[in-house]
Amino acid sequence: MFRRVGIIGAGLMGASFALALKEKHPDTEIVAFARSDSSFKRLKKLSIADKVTKRLEDVSKNCDLIVLSLPVTLIEEYLEKISSFLKKDAIIIDLGSTKHAITLAAQKQLKYPQNFVGCHPLCGSEKHGAESADKNLYKQALCVITSPESYRSTKKIKRLWISLGAKVKFLDPFTHDKMLSAVSHLPHILSFTLAQLVPTSYHEFAGPSFGEMTRIASSNPQLWCDIFSVNRNNLIKDLTRYIRLLEEFKGQLEKNHINQIYFSLQQANKKIKPLK
Amino acid sequence: MFRRVGIIGAGLMGASFALALKEKHPDTEIVAFARSDSSFKRLKKLSIADKVTKRLEDVSKNCDLIVLSLPVTLIEEYLEKISSFLKKDAIIIDLGSTKHAITLAAQKQLKYPQNFVGCHPLCGSEKHGAESADKNLYKQALCVITSPESYRSTKKIKRLWISLGAKVKFLDPFTHDKMLSAVSHLPHILSFTLAQLVPTSYHEFAGPSFGEMTRIASSNPQLWCDIFSVNRNNLIKDLTRYIRLLEEFKGQLEKNHINQIYFSLQQANKKIKPLK
Repeated sequence: MFRRVGIIGAGLMGASFALALKEKHPDTEIVAFARSDSSFKRLKKLSIADKVTKRLEDVSKNCDLIVLSLPVTLIEEYLEKISSFLKKDAIIIDLGSTKHAITLAAQKQLKYPQNFVGCHPLCGSEKHGAESADKNLYKQALCVITSPESYRSTKKIKRLWISLGAKVKFLDPFTHDKMLSAVSHLPHILSFTLAQLVPTSYHEFAGPSFGEMTRIASSNPQLWCDIFSVNRNNLIKDLTRYIRLLEEFKGQLEKNHINQIYFSLQQANKKIKPLK
Repeated sequence: MFRRVGIIGAGLMGASFALALKEKHPDTEIVAFARSDSSFKRLKKLSIADKVTKRLEDVSKNCDLIVLSLPVTLIEEYLEKISSFLKKDAIIIDLGSTKHAITLAAQKQLKYPQNFVGCHPLCGSEKHGAESADKNLYKQALCVITSPESYRSTKKIKRLWISLGAKVKFLDPFTHDKMLSAVSHLPHILSFTLAQLVPTSYHEFAGPSFGEMTRIASSNPQLWCDIFSVNRNNLIKDLTRYIRLLEEFKGQLEKNHINQIYFSLQQANKKIKPLK
């Protein structure tokens, strides 16, 4: 499918991508870019890729697929850095959790913007780093593609995801960021904030639900700081609506309006049933 | 340990308790109280207990242990209903998620308040009903006891929980309600509210974290309405603090104060690490 694939950002997502790719396409040569001496040594030791290099040119010049699996603000930066070296037909994908700003950056930075395919695989983990890489991470996962379905590059990347066991759906970048704000980014803020609120001395009295509600609060702060900042316009709207709902709920508690509380809970309850 | 045990409220918690008890103490006769014809038939069919009765007297008169596994507001009601029939040495426990009001009710309603042992096993499920009963529900679970450790009745009940595979910790009822507001009741409100906010059309783009953050929103609304109402004073305080933290976070997003956002996330992140 691809002769040589470059991974820029071999953290959990990038390194898992490398392992999954190697399993399904053993003939593909995988080159991982290391930003520092220490990550160079780590990646060498972990055998994530066929080759590890500290020269960005080695990756951007010689690969037919380049995977930007970096924090979202770095993706924009690296699009610029790699742009001058790229082969004319090299496809560039990213695995970032926001899509609007990255798509605009790709359109601005790349000589052939049609070679860029925005991807967001809806999987991951509170774990991070190449050490936690899992070749099965993308199996059964949903990958949202935000580039036009009709592009040659998009079609090829869709086939690639399917070959790795993922399912593919399409959204435009703007709608993607709006929806993901509600179903992923806001829940992360709620989880971080809950962790912040509750004294650690209470933890021994927490049942399974607290563990679930705070698991994602152990996610990488830098990664999520970036996502929140890039998707801030949607998040501010969602936070405003969420706070309003909480204020309403608090008002019902203050007045002990049991029937209204019950009604709210039942509405939520009905909506969540389909997820079971 | 107990010759005859009466279960009042054979839902998920009560029926699981009956199954666990029967497994560990097969000689104990278990009597389940059914509030209606339909639940009488259901409980008979499910073989949860040795005997099913619609007469509350049958349970309260003849048992040495009575288990009130009902929604919290009903526990107070049933304490009153059973009080006149109880044997002098019968022990009464409840499995309710709030403890302060129930303990006060027991002190008021019971002739021998020292026979009451407040229990809160920190387990459960978003499922409900005797149909979902699980004899292993209490294994490895933590049961919080809120009655004085020195009481004869408390000591006996502690031994009973340990025989069922649970661990036991002690809290006074007031502290229990304050802590559980933060680690359980508030998280349920956050989950219900998140479910309420997000349009169901977005669900197909939700990753695993959304499923986790909303699982408990499929919990029984009536049960949780009761808990929220009974523990409203603590919840109003926790909601106020939580909303304040969200407002602060929103303010940081509005100003795009990345460093402050990062600092908040890192604080939360550090606190949650021990849970891993």
